Amino acid sequence: MEPLLWVDEALEIIDQSLLPDRILTLRLESLAALREAIASLRLRGAPALGLAGAWGTALACREAGDPAAPGYESRVRELAEALARVRPTAVNLAWGVRQVLDTLEAAAPGDWPVLAVDCAARLHAEDRAAGQALCAAGAELLREGGRYLTHCNAGPLATSGVGTALGIFLEGRRRGLDFEVLVDETRPLLQGARLTTLELREAGVRHRLITDSMAAFAMARLGVDGVFIGADRIALNGDTANKIGSYGLALAARAHGVPFHVAAPLSSVDSACPNGAGIPIEERDGAEVRGYAGLRWAPSGTPTWNPAFDVVPAELIQDIVTEQGLLAAPFSRSIRDALSRLRVPNSHRARSTS
Amino acid sequence: MEPLLWVDEALEIIDQSLLPDRILTLRLESLAALREAIASLRLRGAPALGLAGAWGTALACREAGDPAAPGYESRVRELAEALARVRPTAVNLAWGVRQVLDTLEAAAPGDWPVLAVDCAARLHAEDRAAGQALCAAGAELLREGGRYLTHCNAGPLATSGVGTALGIFLEGRRRGLDFEVLVDETRPLLQGARLTTLELREAGVRHRLITDSMAAFAMARLGVDGVFIGADRIALNGDTANKIGSYGLALAARAHGVPFHVAAPLSSVDSACPNGAGIPIEERDGAEVRGYAGLRWAPSGTPTWNPAFDVVPAELIQDIVTEQGLLAAPFSRSIRDALSRLRVPNSHRARSTS
Repeated sequence: MEPLLWVDEALEIIDQSLLPDRILTLRLESLAALREAIASLRLRGAPALGLAGAWGTALACREAGDPAAPGYESRVRELAEALARVRPTAVNLAWGVRQVLDTLEAAAPGDWPVLAVDCAARLHAEDRAAGQALCAAGAELLREGGRYLTHCNAGPLATSGVGTALGIFLEGRRRGLDFEVLVDETRPLLQGARLTTLELREAGVRHRLITDSMAAFAMARLGVDGVFIGADRIALNGDTANKIGSYGLALAARAHGVPFHVAAPLSSVDSACPNGAGIPIEERDGAEVRGYAGLRWAPSGTPTWNPAFDVVPAELIQDIVTEQGLLAAPFSRSIRDALSRLRVPNSHRARSTS
Repeated sequence: MEPLLWVDEALEIIDQSLLPDRILTLRLESLAALREAIASLRLRGAPALGLAGAWGTALACREAGDPAAPGYESRVRELAEALARVRPTAVNLAWGVRQVLDTLEAAAPGDWPVLAVDCAARLHAEDRAAGQALCAAGAELLREGGRYLTHCNAGPLATSGVGTALGIFLEGRRRGLDFEVLVDETRPLLQGARLTTLELREAGVRHRLITDSMAAFAMARLGVDGVFIGADRIALNGDTANKIGSYGLALAARAHGVPFHVAAPLSSVDSACPNGAGIPIEERDGAEVRGYAGLRWAPSGTPTWNPAFDVVPAELIQDIVTEQGLLAAPFSRSIRDALSRLRVPNSHRARSTS
């Protein structure tokens, strides 16, 4: 499934708020429509939001009027920066906007509409190529008849259409391997139950849905050959922030000797972050914990703690699967070496939420 | 809150299916009404169901007609045994029925109605006394300003009105201690979110609700001074079956050096069970994992794995809080010694589900 595609001068997205029961493609022809789609989570997933920011900036170049008219450049910037603020915690969105605005800076305004589309298309293609290389490397870790476990949704829907942790399973299936994936439902927002199950079913990958509380016992009773998760941010020492629940899963995996794999493009590495202690953790509204989608089951007003992410310490991670292949411990060295092989310095980086 | 009370020849219960939003007392004057209440989970919790079996047998003695008429004894047995089958996996229910029927065996049928009420009242009082002694012992483990974590619902509602793991917190509060309890919501049936929060609020205990996936990170970020859980069955070596999620919690507790306390009356020890490998694990309907209470969020027909319980190995348990005080490792010895101090041999034992 393609979460977003640029088709005939507009952005077409799958409305993820209706999944899994309805698969509806929306055609977003204006910035206003894109803003609404992001605010209402019709479009989500850190890498996908980064691309939405880039394509949205291309829309801004079109909506800002005549490039020859006075004030065109500042109108583009205002429109694009307003888009970046729609989900202030999702820094990828701002990152995508910034990538395109930086590219436009040196060019004549008359070229902006075309240049913006070119730049967004390049970012889109790069994300896709990185995803494909990553999935090819990760699929080597799968074996016929194995059983794997994943958390949250790190599939095509969350990215440019290829995926990371979940993309590895899809690639394994394409290679003809038969294996089973246990899917953590991923409370509170249930991305595993709603999206990962759907993507695995579409790809014909055998799977069973479990509650997050069943993962440790699955390792003990059913046996699990590996855990694969995505990443929202990776520190230079390998400490990895990902959807809440990843840390408990990593502790259970260590207790059972189950390899714990992180799958993410190198754009998820934050060079400004030496270790996990520097990663801020977003805390969200308690209503998410008191119920789900309009149904409340806890007593009204029950106090909550609702961190959206946690941090898996590097020592619990077996390897980090990237577009350059598997990075192994010590991660301080392997990550540094991988970054140095990137042509473009990894300065403006995704630091976001899914 | 009293989940069930015998008042003027009938059983009064709180309808737990309406909690937390409505607190409604139902008066059950017939076996038919009791059967309906158990089948629809208006009454739940292993120890509470055991008492319901006992009180239901007293109702059977009344509904079976004239004790002097032929066939009275077999009518009583049929009615009581039909009650025991309402939740076949909840063996406590059958245990309560069996306790009363065994007591009646040696008596003249004319005495059965009165004897059955006496026996049920005795079991009820014993469960309450055991709960109070257990909570008094457990409260010694709490400290002013501490932070504790619990899973599922092991409070007054699940028992004769005193509770086990949760009862300890209520006793600590009665003693004037101020501390905080983190409450696992306890998917899939959300007993923590619905019932534990309610009981803590009523008792004025500070608490915050979290999803099960947040517990490990709470230990890392917030700090937790102890985990308290109940037990559905304890093997002779201390291995403990409890609500699914208990095992992962125990692994996280060990990784953080957090003491893991099991609180249960000695009637939860199964002398027929040398260790956890012998404890069968009930698997329930996948609809519980695909959604909650009529709301389905996973794709229709998604395969699931839904064990209702897991097993915490004895080596992860710091102590078992019982009506005889704290049992320490090695549990094989401390449990055997405790059982030998019980006056009544622990033969027909609760082996049930909550």
